Amino acid sequence: MSQNGEPAFAGADWGTSRFRLWLMDRAGQVLAERRSDDGLDASRATGFSQVLEGHLAAVGAPADLPVVVCGMAGSRQGWVEAAYVDIPADPATILAASARIIDTKRDIRIVPGLAQQGAHPNVMRGEETQLLGLVHGKPGFSGLVAMPGTHSKWVHLENGEVSGFSTYLTGELYALLCSHSILRHSIGNAAEGVDADHPGFGAGLALALAPGFSLLGTLFEIRAGMLLNGLAEDEAAARLSGMVIGTEAADACAKAGADIKTVHLVASGRMERLYRKALSAAGFDCETVDADDAVRKGLHAAAAGLWF
Amino acid sequence: MSQNGEPAFAGADWGTSRFRLWLMDRAGQVLAERRSDDGLDASRATGFSQVLEGHLAAVGAPADLPVVVCGMAGSRQGWVEAAYVDIPADPATILAASARIIDTKRDIRIVPGLAQQGAHPNVMRGEETQLLGLVHGKPGFSGLVAMPGTHSKWVHLENGEVSGFSTYLTGELYALLCSHSILRHSIGNAAEGVDADHPGFGAGLALALAPGFSLLGTLFEIRAGMLLNGLAEDEAAARLSGMVIGTEAADACAKAGADIKTVHLVASGRMERLYRKALSAAGFDCETVDADDAVRKGLHAAAAGLWF
Repeated sequence: MSQNGEPAFAGADWGTSRFRLWLMDRAGQVLAERRSDDGLDASRATGFSQVLEGHLAAVGAPADLPVVVCGMAGSRQGWVEAAYVDIPADPATILAASARIIDTKRDIRIVPGLAQQGAHPNVMRGEETQLLGLVHGKPGFSGLVAMPGTHSKWVHLENGEVSGFSTYLTGELYALLCSHSILRHSIGNAAEGVDADHPGFGAGLALALAPGFSLLGTLFEIRAGMLLNGLAEDEAAARLSGMVIGTEAADACAKAGADIKTVHLVASGRMERLYRKALSAAGFDCETVDADDAVRKGLHAAAAGLWF
Repeated sequence: MSQNGEPAFAGADWGTSRFRLWLMDRAGQVLAERRSDDGLDASRATGFSQVLEGHLAAVGAPADLPVVVCGMAGSRQGWVEAAYVDIPADPATILAASARIIDTKRDIRIVPGLAQQGAHPNVMRGEETQLLGLVHGKPGFSGLVAMPGTHSKWVHLENGEVSGFSTYLTGELYALLCSHSILRHSIGNAAEGVDADHPGFGAGLALALAPGFSLLGTLFEIRAGMLLNGLAEDEAAARLSGMVIGTEAADACAKAGADIKTVHLVASGRMERLYRKALSAAGFDCETVDADDAVRKGLHAAAAGLWF
């Protein structure tokens, strides 16, 4: 059995467009890290096993080191499908449903995504591992978790189980509007890099959090603001960002239930600052969990549950 | 002076991607019609005057026949800019601000668009001519007008004047989501051709009209519905259409004011049926004005105001 400070397993977050791998010891300390653009499409062409072994060799991983993988590598279009586990599901149930790769000599497992059946069907894949990290060592954890991104997830945890979740298309909609809609003429190259302290972001938030706000009925005002008032590109981008994130925050707040005051925000950097400002404006207290940290903790929790 | 049955003027609706022209008599009866793909970009290359003269020659228009044009030909990127007229504005004020083309021997005027200044900046260009048609012969007309499309306009008329309007990005958002978002995998080629009696359209409407509905927080359920329940492409497209049009209808209804029961719906064909169903479900009575008819009537009203 490995000691602390010696490699105990590798954990990989393998998504559609990027690959990250950490070599960790039993305690979850990171001994080495790899980041690359080996997403699903690139890896399918090369061969998933070959891509993974290349990264493992680069960090000096022993030939029998076990590997736990999360992310889209477990989707139907990925390496091996790790079928969705229906919620409510506790960590042990999730890990028991991991897919095992059988064409290598290592023990390689892929963590499955989660599915919500019923009138509001929903799925997640990748975020469940961050949630495993969040609840690890906190038996009976209950709370509301916000995981912003291309498809933001809002997750209710009860007694350490995922009890329900919803998805907001916030990041994708913002990118689409900036790059493909009539608003692209007003935003130019200012779409990326909006920061939380831009006055336009605050103005967009204020609009979205006011009663009766309609995102669909307000977006065009950005175009009109440019035509009539010379609204600058950075101001347009910041206002749009405030409007879409504010719309998410306002709705999530309305649905959270009066007893929930705190949101556990899984995010990093600029995104964390944007959402913290939006969630505060919507009336939540915010406890930030660094997004990268959550993935690593989740992979460690998965490895501990599977092997230690 | 021309008699009824003889050409009195030509009216053209010249948009970004299409061109339509009608040869009409003094009473507004259509004597001949042209439709083509000579939108702004194509026409700029050929020369606006040459494109217009080609269509006029094809319908046998006399060399001195006056022409009234509406649409994006009057935008900054068009032929000659017809600067926006600020609302409130009555028909005479709008027509007085028409731009005159001075590089031809004909009398050619371009109807200006309308601008709403202030906290909710907004613009329209093209729809003002349909509104001219709508109020023509109805002095003191007041009411709420819905003009669905890529950028749906909702217009309040008071005493024959445009007093305020808003824009919903409904058509553009639907097209973007169908063709560029994650939902494209669920919709395939079913985006166009959704009809009002598709059960999925009704289901989407019902969702959107229920209290507390969030479009941003529900879109992804279409993707999850396909992954978990095999939601068919036509069902996905119809549901999405119902959600976005229903979101527009619900918000417009909430903002219309309790005294407004009737909406004048300027639309044709499939679009008219979709919106009539949505507006009825939202609690409005609907009076349909055929969209093509409204353009022709508006061009005739403009010609009558300018020349007869």
